[in-house]
Amino acid sequence: MIHEILIDGEWRQASHPAGSFSTIDPGTGKHLPGAYPISTWTDIKDALEAAAQAVDELARAGPDRIAAFLEAFAEKVDGRREELVAMAHLETALPVEPRLRSVEFPRLVDQLRQAAQACRDRSWCRATIDTKLDIRSKYAPLGGPIIIFSPNNFPFAFNAVAGGDFAAALAAGNPVIAKANPGHPGTTRILAGAAPESLKASGLPGAAVQVLYHFAAEEGLRLVSHPSVGATAFTGSRAAGMKLKEAADRAGKPIYVEMSSANPVFILPGAIEERAADIAGELFNSCLLGSGQMCTRPGLVVLVDSPGSRALIGQVKDLYVSSEPGILLGPQVLEGLKEASARLARSGAELVTGGREAGGPGFRFQPTLFLLSGAGFLRNPRYFQVESFGTLSLIVLARDIGELKEIASSLEGQLTATIYSHSGGHDDAVHDAIEPFLRRKSGRLLNDRMPTGVAVSPAMNHGGPYPATGHPGFTAVGFPASILRFAALQCYDHVRPGRLPVELRDENPTGKMWRLIDGDWTQKSL
Amino acid sequence: MIHEILIDGEWRQASHPAGSFSTIDPGTGKHLPGAYPISTWTDIKDALEAAAQAVDELARAGPDRIAAFLEAFAEKVDGRREELVAMAHLETALPVEPRLRSVEFPRLVDQLRQAAQACRDRSWCRATIDTKLDIRSKYAPLGGPIIIFSPNNFPFAFNAVAGGDFAAALAAGNPVIAKANPGHPGTTRILAGAAPESLKASGLPGAAVQVLYHFAAEEGLRLVSHPSVGATAFTGSRAAGMKLKEAADRAGKPIYVEMSSANPVFILPGAIEERAADIAGELFNSCLLGSGQMCTRPGLVVLVDSPGSRALIGQVKDLYVSSEPGILLGPQVLEGLKEASARLARSGAELVTGGREAGGPGFRFQPTLFLLSGAGFLRNPRYFQVESFGTLSLIVLARDIGELKEIASSLEGQLTATIYSHSGGHDDAVHDAIEPFLRRKSGRLLNDRMPTGVAVSPAMNHGGPYPATGHPGFTAVGFPASILRFAALQCYDHVRPGRLPVELRDENPTGKMWRLIDGDWTQKSL
Repeated sequence: MIHEILIDGEWRQASHPAGSFSTIDPGTGKHLPGAYPISTWTDIKDALEAAAQAVDELARAGPDRIAAFLEAFAEKVDGRREELVAMAHLETALPVEPRLRSVEFPRLVDQLRQAAQACRDRSWCRATIDTKLDIRSKYAPLGGPIIIFSPNNFPFAFNAVAGGDFAAALAAGNPVIAKANPGHPGTTRILAGAAPESLKASGLPGAAVQVLYHFAAEEGLRLVSHPSVGATAFTGSRAAGMKLKEAADRAGKPIYVEMSSANPVFILPGAIEERAADIAGELFNSCLLGSGQMCTRPGLVVLVDSPGSRALIGQVKDLYVSSEPGILLGPQVLEGLKEASARLARSGAELVTGGREAGGPGFRFQPTLFLLSGAGFLRNPRYFQVESFGTLSLIVLARDIGELKEIASSLEGQLTATIYSHSGGHDDAVHDAIEPFLRRKSGRLLNDRMPTGVAVSPAMNHGGPYPATGHPGFTAVGFPASILRFAALQCYDHVRPGRLPVELRDENPTGKMWRLIDGDWTQKSL
Repeated sequence: MIHEILIDGEWRQASHPAGSFSTIDPGTGKHLPGAYPISTWTDIKDALEAAAQAVDELARAGPDRIAAFLEAFAEKVDGRREELVAMAHLETALPVEPRLRSVEFPRLVDQLRQAAQACRDRSWCRATIDTKLDIRSKYAPLGGPIIIFSPNNFPFAFNAVAGGDFAAALAAGNPVIAKANPGHPGTTRILAGAAPESLKASGLPGAAVQVLYHFAAEEGLRLVSHPSVGATAFTGSRAAGMKLKEAADRAGKPIYVEMSSANPVFILPGAIEERAADIAGELFNSCLLGSGQMCTRPGLVVLVDSPGSRALIGQVKDLYVSSEPGILLGPQVLEGLKEASARLARSGAELVTGGREAGGPGFRFQPTLFLLSGAGFLRNPRYFQVESFGTLSLIVLARDIGELKEIASSLEGQLTATIYSHSGGHDDAVHDAIEPFLRRKSGRLLNDRMPTGVAVSPAMNHGGPYPATGHPGFTAVGFPASILRFAALQCYDHVRPGRLPVELRDENPTGKMWRLIDGDWTQKSL
């Protein structure tokens, strides 16, 4: 049996599919029942055509109905929690507790509700009014569907048909064409199943949410560069992200790619003196979380060489050795870790622990640490910042503070950078020497806590300088900021009052929306 | 004598230049005295290295000093008004009055002062604080110089070393490497002359403002994709913009290109009945302004065929015929107009008036109108939307409202779109049918006024969907929004209070800065 795709509000068989695929239970290595179609351009074309209609219908429907949809959808999804948790666990082998049921699932529902609130509130569109010149502007939908490619590691929170990008794209008023991650098509199918009814109940077109399971890479390039597309959001590997980015850039289509990050953690000497055991534990927990398959996992740990640092490494090693290797998302993650280990060993890094496939059931790799001198790292900083997806980190021991600083200055763009330092200020001089480099090269800077765990907050930045993402000005997490990725700035110059969108009329449309009027943010009407 | 370039705070001769160029007085066609160097990578490298130092020094200096510089610079530039107006007139042949002295020069000075105010105010950085989770974020400088390529048509307001991009890049805290437009190097030199002293007086590094006059196209590609660059702003031709965009995109470097626009003006039947003569006059004035060398000049005028429309065209034609052809910026603009005329004639458009080089002195082309049927336009809409830089517009006569709508739906991305309609509502149905297309495809929508004249307002959008620019979310004109192009989003997650930038500390650093705290915009301290 081949599952149906969701096009223009209807579940239907793929037209002229290039084949089908089934996914693997990573806990057993066995194929799960049910097959999913590999779509060809026929299906994509149908989705694009339906989406073009949905663009206009969504514009007419307005934010209140879209917010109602997001809430109804959240409600329906919430009602299928157990079914979804069971399916996501089956497809990803991520632990049911606490991860899937108590962390990621509530986050998914909360994101949808936050997006609904931002959509209804309308402050996200940054309505700006110059009363003297009668010029008004705001952000508006892009006029084409948002294509969402979602990653393998968050079957709920980043799911193409329900996660953060999805919620942000809809909140901005755009239809979505979701490309499921082939690692969890069943989870995606159940989530998508909640869409048509919620759309209908909210008076939105069925084509506002469409789902394809898979298509060839070249069809993806064709899709993201298609004239009728609004923008693309991609979370995944650097190799795939770079190809999509190139295609979209050439066509002048906005694309937001979140590709990879080493997430450097600098542990300064005073912090090691003060609380080495605590930090070892935090590092261990952060690196093992989700079997290390997190975009913000610490992949690079930098310390100054000292007996204390060596002791800390010993403590981390002991924790690693005594831990149970987690199940990986699939064979390709296992292969990636084998390759990454071989690559680091080949380049002169010393294996501290792990480095090999672990016993089953399921795909497992020993939690792995490599060690390298600062001089070794500085011979090829770019090489040693390549993300290894899974529990594999490189610890770099700098000879002294000068070398630590040099390492900090050699970093590429990262999602996060972290500094652990002495609570009493013993490390302040070192902190101040490295902070400017870490700050400039990362989207999120942390003190004294590990970077895994990305709160859905208006102040969050899940983004960062290239090559972590494609543009340093945008975040993929947090409302209302993440919505702006999927919006165009539109100015109304002496447009007649009755023709203005309600957000730009004299009267505040909700009584609470924040607008920038003559230089002041206000909730008042004019 | 070869003029000096401005590198690291010092005027010096170019090292190993590839040659030199002089510019032409467009009013006489004769070369102006003085030559300017064509730099090679040696100079660019020096500028990049000095800029890398300036990045840190500007970060330490902070916004108050940068604002002080922008104000001191504005003051000094203002003091050289007559010298600048004379030089700009000599190099561009743009009229001294009102254009250069009373319109563009005051705008230049005003922009610098608005940028200074935005910089000191700091609200532009959108400080966002989540007190519950202790996460804080704001926009910050990009950590590398902004490369500015400026156009030929605004020697003051868009000058690489004093115009809108310059002011926005500095206000965000970035150093600037200005690439002068080779059409007005003398104007650029005088403007740049005001920089070193103002920088010194404000305690800023000399390398915060550096100037090169020219370099080969391939050096430009190398520059915009250089690892140490922050971002690039380009205003100019589509051909050059596309090449720079491709190079920057590949390197993952932000680039903002403003390339070209046909600026469609739709004049609806009721408006023609009501006030054809007025509209003819407005269209004439808008198209002749600056000899038509404006990014927002109406290049495409769309009407429904009728005796009234024909009469309006006749009135516009009479105005064109009786007008004096203005002097163009240079021989390349003249060549461009000859080619554009030949191109339109070849493709079946009917010449209404003009179409040929006009008598001297200086480079002149007859104000030109072409006429085409809606069916003719729809045979190749993209072909007929190519910008013709100068006073050359294409009038399209639609057979009926249906064809008018089809034309509206075939538009590419534009800086502006304009609708003239009956003041009493007779055109409302037609307006509502075409508005969604025009709205979606333009950065700025106007009613009942021509698009030339871009006010420096917080609500302005001088931008628009591709291919007018490279990203629909950014404006090149208006503070504070234009500043955001040159900034990175930076999040502080549990960063110790004393380490936060002042804009994110509990106390409001100015007492007036707007911050988004727990969902509300406020000027209060925490």
